This record gives sequence, C-alpha cells and structure tokens, in this order.
Amino acid sequence: MNETKHVHIVTFIKDKIKKGEWTIGSRLPSQRQLALLFEVNRSTIVTALEELTAEGLIQGKTGVATVVINNTWTLLEGNVPSTWNKNIKLGGHQASSVLVQEINEAESDPRLIQLSKGELAPDLFPLQQMKEVLHRVSDQLTSFGYEEPKGNRQLREAVSVHLKKRGINASPSSILIVSGALQALHLISVGLLQQGSTVYVEKPSYVYSLAVFQSAGVQLKGLPIDREGLSLEALQKVPFRPGHSVLYTNPTYHNPTSSLMSLSRRKTLRAVCEEKQLPMIEDDVYRDLWLDEPPPPALKARDTTGSMLYLGSFSKSLSAGLRIGWVVGPDAVIDRLADLKMQSDYGSSSLSQYAATEWLTSGLYEEHLTTIREALIYRRTLFVQALETYLAPYATWTVPTGGFFIWIQLHQAIDARSLFSQAKEAGLLLNPGSIYAEPSGSYIRLSYAYASHSELQEGIRRLALIIKTAIEK
Amino acid sequence: MNETKHVHIVTFIKDKIKKGEWTIGSRLPSQRQLALLFEVNRSTIVTALEELTAEGLIQGKTGVATVVINNTWTLLEGNVPSTWNKNIKLGGHQASSVLVQEINEAESDPRLIQLSKGELAPDLFPLQQMKEVLHRVSDQLTSFGYEEPKGNRQLREAVSVHLKKRGINASPSSILIVSGALQALHLISVGLLQQGSTVYVEKPSYVYSLAVFQSAGVQLKGLPIDREGLSLEALQKVPFRPGHSVLYTNPTYHNPTSSLMSLSRRKTLRAVCEEKQLPMIEDDVYRDLWLDEPPPPALKARDTTGSMLYLGSFSKSLSAGLRIGWVVGPDAVIDRLADLKMQSDYGSSSLSQYAATEWLTSGLYEEHLTTIREALIYRRTLFVQALETYLAPYATWTVPTGGFFIWIQLHQAIDARSLFSQAKEAGLLLNPGSIYAEPSGSYIRLSYAYASHSELQEGIRRLALIIKTAIEK
Repeated sequence: MNETKHVHIVTFIKDKIKKGEWTIGSRLPSQRQLALLFEVNRSTIVTALEELTAEGLIQGKTGVATVVINNTWTLLEGNVPSTWNKNIKLGGHQASSVLVQEINEAESDPRLIQLSKGELAPDLFPLQQMKEVLHRVSDQLTSFGYEEPKGNRQLREAVSVHLKKRGINASPSSILIVSGALQALHLISVGLLQQGSTVYVEKPSYVYSLAVFQSAGVQLKGLPIDREGLSLEALQKVPFRPGHSVLYTNPTYHNPTSSLMSLSRRKTLRAVCEEKQLPMIEDDVYRDLWLDEPPPPALKARDTTGSMLYLGSFSKSLSAGLRIGWVVGPDAVIDRLADLKMQSDYGSSSLSQYAATEWLTSGLYEEHLTTIREALIYRRTLFVQALETYLAPYATWTVPTGGFFIWIQLHQAIDARSLFSQAKEAGLLLNPGSIYAEPSGSYIRLSYAYASHSELQEGIRRLALIIKTAIEK
Repeated sequence: MNETKHVHIVTFIKDKIKKGEWTIGSRLPSQRQLALLFEVNRSTIVTALEELTAEGLIQGKTGVATVVINNTWTLLEGNVPSTWNKNIKLGGHQASSVLVQEINEAESDPRLIQLSKGELAPDLFPLQQMKEVLHRVSDQLTSFGYEEPKGNRQLREAVSVHLKKRGINASPSSILIVSGALQALHLISVGLLQQGSTVYVEKPSYVYSLAVFQSAGVQLKGLPIDREGLSLEALQKVPFRPGHSVLYTNPTYHNPTSSLMSLSRRKTLRAVCEEKQLPMIEDDVYRDLWLDEPPPPALKARDTTGSMLYLGSFSKSLSAGLRIGWVVGPDAVIDRLADLKMQSDYGSSSLSQYAATEWLTSGLYEEHLTTIREALIYRRTLFVQALETYLAPYATWTVPTGGFFIWIQLHQAIDARSLFSQAKEAGLLLNPGSIYAEPSGSYIRLSYAYASHSELQEGIRRLALIIKTAIEK
C-alpha cells in the first residue's frame, strides 16, 4: 500500500518539475504539508524525497527547505537554464508584506471565523436581485467589444445621477470607471505622482497594507486621526512642497478606525488644503454604509477648484466581485487616467459595467442599501454585546456609526505576529493593527460584516481567551 | 435669439469651471468646436468668450488656445490653488503616442470605415449564445465577492482543460486569470523585469504601440521577421546579458504582419533560447483564429524548463468586452504575478469569469470558433479581391492564413501622418506601419474583421484613390 503511494508521490513531483511548474530553485512544500496533501505518513514522504534526491532532481538539508535543483532537461544537458524565477525579486514593484499575503490567502479558508474580511457576508449578498439584474442585462444585450476609454457611457451617466443624490456634481466626462478604488489609486500613483512625492495619509490607515504608493516611489507620511477624523493641527504644521505633496484621506467611516470626520472639520480641512495648495484624494467607499444617520457631505461636494479627486466603489456596499468603482476629477486629469487605464487593461468588464448600470438605474441599489443597513445595525448590536461580555476587561473601543469595522484598543500590548498566529490556531482570522502602521501591538481591526451571527460571538469569546492567556504569561 | 444662446454658453462654461471640471490652465475647445457644439455662429462664441475674459475667468491670444486662468474660488481669494493638472506630465508612466490615442478615440466613431479595429465585427458577435450564457450564469449564481488571487478556480480548471486540447499541459495552479493579455504584459513588466532590462521583440510589432514596457523602464530591441516568423539569424547574433534580457514573441498570426512561425523554426527557436538562457513570453491570442489549417503547436507546448510565460485571451476570438485572458508559467512566477494583480485591482470581474467558464465548459466556445472561421474566410476572400481590384498597382501583400490582419507594403513610401489624416478625411480609419516601429511609410495594417462587407470593398477603393493622389503629387 505504502509502496504504491510512494510511487504516486514521486510521479506527482516529477511531473510538476517536468512541466516547469516547480522550477529550479523553487522550494518543495514541507514534509508535513506533503504528508497532509497525500494523506500518508511522513515516512512515506521521506522515502519519496530520497528517491528524487538520488535521481538528482531535488536537494534538501536538515533544517532547510528542500529545493528543486534540476529538471529532466537540465539533467540531459548538464546545463541550468535561466528561468523566470531568477527575476522574481527584481521587478520595480514590491511584493505585499508577508502578513498581508498570509491574510489574503487565509481569507478563502472556510474553516476560519472571518473577523478580518472587509466584505459583506454571503447572506447579505442580494442574490435574487443580482439574478434579476443579470436577466435584464441579458435581455437588453447587444454586441459588445472594447468600451470607451473612460468606461461605458450609460454607466457614467448613471454614476453622475447617483453622485448628484449624494450632493456631488460630476458630469459623465469627469468620471472614469475603474475596477475598484484600488485600481484608481494605482493609476493615480503611476500617472500623477512624481517619484519622490509624499502622500500624507491618516495613521493608522489601510493604505499602509497596500504596496501601491510605495511601489511607485512615493513616500507615505502619517498624520494622527481622532474621532472627528484627520488631525488638522498636525496637518497645519507640515511644510509642504507644492507639486510634490498630496493628501489622501478617508473621512467617512475610516478604515480601520471607523472614524467619521465632522462637518466643521471638513470645512476647515478644505480651507487648509486650499491655502496650502495641497491636492486631495478623497476615498469615500464606505459612505453608503451609514448606520445611524447619513454622514456629512463629501469633501468633493464643495470642491470648486478641481484640486480634489474622489473615489467611489460598489465593492463595499454591493459586491466586490463586480470590480466596479469610479474616480471623479477635472476632465483633463480624468483623460490622463483613462489613457493609463487603457494602457494597463483596456477598460473594465463590459458585463460588470452593464450590471452596475442596471443596479443604479433600476433603483435596486438604493433598496439594497436599506436592507443591508438593517442587517448591519443588527450585527453591530450583536458584536458590541459580545465585546462587552468578553472583551471589556482587556480592551476599549468606540461603537462605529457606519461601515463595518471596530478598532479595538487593548489595555496591554501583544506582539502582532504572535497574536495573529494564536488567533489563527484558534480558528480566527483578524487584522493586527501593525498592518495599518500601528506598531504598538495595542490595536486590532475586527469586522462584523462577514462572519455569521454565532461566529461573531464565538470569535470574540475565543479572542478574549487568547488575550487573557497572553497577558497572564 | 443669439442673446439667449450667448448667455447659455457663458453659463455652461462658468459651470464647467466652477465644478472644477475645466481647471486652471486647461484649454477651452476651439471656437470652431464650440460653435459646432452649441450650433451657433462663431460670432456668438466670440461674444461669450469676451464676456468670460472680462470677468477674468479665461484668457486667449490670437493663434493660441484660450485657457482657464481663474475660477470662482481663486477670484474670491486672489490665489491660484495647486491642481492635479500640474501633475499630469509628472508621473512615471508615459502617455500613449498621440497617433495611438487618436486611433483609440476614432475607433468609436461610427461614421468611419474601420479598417483599423483589431476586433470582430458586431455581426460576428455571438449574441444569442452570450445571452444564453448569461442566463445560465444567472441561474447558477451564488453570492460572490473577491475571488482567489489567481482567479476563479472553476475558470482556471476550464482554461487548463482548454489548453490541454491545444497541447499545453498547465495545472490550474500555474494559471493566472487576467483582464486581457495587455494586463499580463503590464504585470510582467512591473513585476519581473528590472529597470534597464531589454525585451527583444519582432520588428514590426504591435507592442511598439503600447507604452507598457517603456513605462517600466525596459528597453525594446527589434529583431527582423519574415514569413516564417522571427529571424533566428538575428537572434543568434545578439549578445544577451542573462537575467537582463527577455524575448517577447507572437509566433502565431503575428500582429501586424500575420506571419506564422513554421514548425521547424519553432524547434530551433526553443533550442536557441534554451542555449542562451533567454526567458520567453509567448503571446498566443490569435491561435484560435486559424483559417486554413490549425497552426503548429505553441512554443509553450514543449516547454520543460519553466522558462516560458504563455499568454492567451478571449478578446480576439470571442469578445474584448469580457476582459478575460490568462498567463501560464511556473507556479512561483504565477504566485508573484497574482500578488501584483491583487495589488493593482483585486482580481478580474466575477461575472466575466463566470461567463468565460460557461463558454468553455459548455462547448459553446468551440462551436463559436467554427462559425467565425467561416465568416472570416469569406471576409478574407472579399477583402483580397478588393485589394487585387484596386490596390494591385500600388502595393503587395501576403494572404494571411489566420488572424485578421493584412500587412500591406506600398511600392512607394507615403508619410504616415499624412496618409492617416487623408484616410480619415475620406472616412477611413487605418493603422500606418509607423505605430509598429516601421517608420519607412511603406506599410499599412488593415483588418478585415470589423467593417461590413460593403465597407471592406469601399474602404479599399477609397484607399487606392488616396494612394494614387499622393503618388501623383
């Protein structure tokens, strides 16, 4: 029995190497992982690896990962070819931090309680309406190919009407359809910011978990944030270099703190930026997820100088899988970003653009917001109750008035990496503050939007246990 | 009457400026364009502009464009704010060449005969099947959010099966779903190529019309191409720097020449690249559009060393609007590109991925290929007849065996810019060879895939006239 299995494993690995999928220099999974994968004892794995080692295909030392050192072709030719793997670390673009990559991967693990995911739960997904929308899209379908550079015209018109309801005047020519707000940041960073520019940003901020600005050779500088949003005192003191500085702000249900910038602070912020000639990017993707009352108007709603870019998206409020967002700005800037978008992917999916148009023009989107608002209010209540029951001895928090994150401050710092690992061991995925450039170990971002009701409670119960154990050590 | 119109124009322009859509420093449309836009005499426009000039909002000199010099806010404050417009030329990313941008724009002009568009005609779009696919997608729909970093698993499995039919063994873990082959090039250029690297490429090649490699700080070097594909003699002579050089090739129905690399040249090319340790990108997006007989197997089909990346797409053979393509390569490289894709747009549209999966698994895609093959063969015949009738005195060409381009060589060179403009004046859109780095003025790329049957003939008739006139001058 083991004999057959061991042959099976050898064949599998040889095949991977032959097909060039495991290239020279790449690491094999650990013996433990292989044993799990093939459902055999570790000894069977050891036998298989020994055979491959004898054939000269792999090499492993105790305590070090086993790596591929040859393949069928190099064994024949006695010659190691250049492979793409050599180049992997060489491109201009940075890889995501290890922790962020690990979280991205763990987010598709159904066994974990997802207190991490910045996304609506599957049961909040408007499945019936989405089916209806697709049927309508199908019925109205005509032949489609590449879209206009700024995106489908009907969708831009619908977004223009939508924004008008939110107090923002934007004609279709000043709107660019993008595949989510992240793509907008990407286009802005490669298209508008010079190398060596500085992006001022709230600290903590989720943009620290993105490589988008850093990869473009742009520096992030953090400004403190309180319950009313970005601290203007700190902003006032910064000596900006006009043309080299930009402010990125997420004033409405800020990620990760859920802070909401007050009306008066919005007014002052606009005035300060105008005085300092500081262009602004307003990230407003959580606006539609208000829970208690509508938030103050967007900063962009009062922009008369064309010095602001405004980002919106369906990813948080409707579905991330649509990959539809928008950037609003002066026509000339939008033209430039549209050209870059064409250069990077020739536009967003027509199907997604048609579906998004139908969601907006049918009124289904506004109806959907009412539904999820109720569901999120209920989830918030449940979650806060669980926090009070289990976490009150160890942490404090502010109840958010919109969005779906709670920013937990621990009374006592815990090393982020070890907290994350212990939580994962306990079947719990959470985002330590460190990925938002909050290195103290005293903060955690939790989401009440994704996990089921019972998981929300159970998750907090387990988290409290982990914290208790860590503190008592 | 003119009075009202003039007020209307002033209000329109003021509104544009107030909303920040026409920012300080941006140019107004020309008086001629404004007159057309508002359907008034040019004198009415002049009056309106004079009023705006008097208010200090705009400034114009004879022979120079009128520009916005102030807006309501700056008039109040006496202070010119920094705007995004200042940054437009500053980002690291290059704008498309003016001619390429002009073509992109003109491609949505329905009045022009499109001999330019590298896209199937609307009447070749499989509308009924696409509707059917959408209905099925809708019926099978479950809640969807962000996809896995490499793309939807079902789609990757379907692509794996699809590639197997084409002789390529690729497991789903070695496939990354992208929003078209252009995005793949973008990810490769920022993620795998170091600044200062050289990409060897056929010359002419459509990649010269893209800014993607140049923007990443990568140099293009051209290698000649003949009827059997890339010239290996030239390749042999190049002194490569291992780790700094990459070969990009489009061996099957090459864009723009439609050249098909022979089986024997494919074998030798692989051997040369292996010997020279030269990694390869094989762009194979036209493979499914063979007309007379299936092409030789892809270079990737014989890759045993993991030194090739392979690009495929639905954009040419099914629909560009789906924005679905794939990259195949060693797992570790695909992991890296997947991470970059997540960083740039968090994955491709779920709807498009579902539709693509359904096209592949239902067998509708292969059926569709049979249908469009017949249609393209017919179009090719028509087009070649028209060429023989009208263009034979002025040019030569080779009849392509797949794809949808004919690369025309003129007996006498004509300045590319003036040929393009004259053709456009005559209602004809075509791609001069210059955008493919063929500067001689002797080449034009024509497509028989998009224009209607009668337009194909009429287009060539007009083109012959233009050439005749140019030569006789």
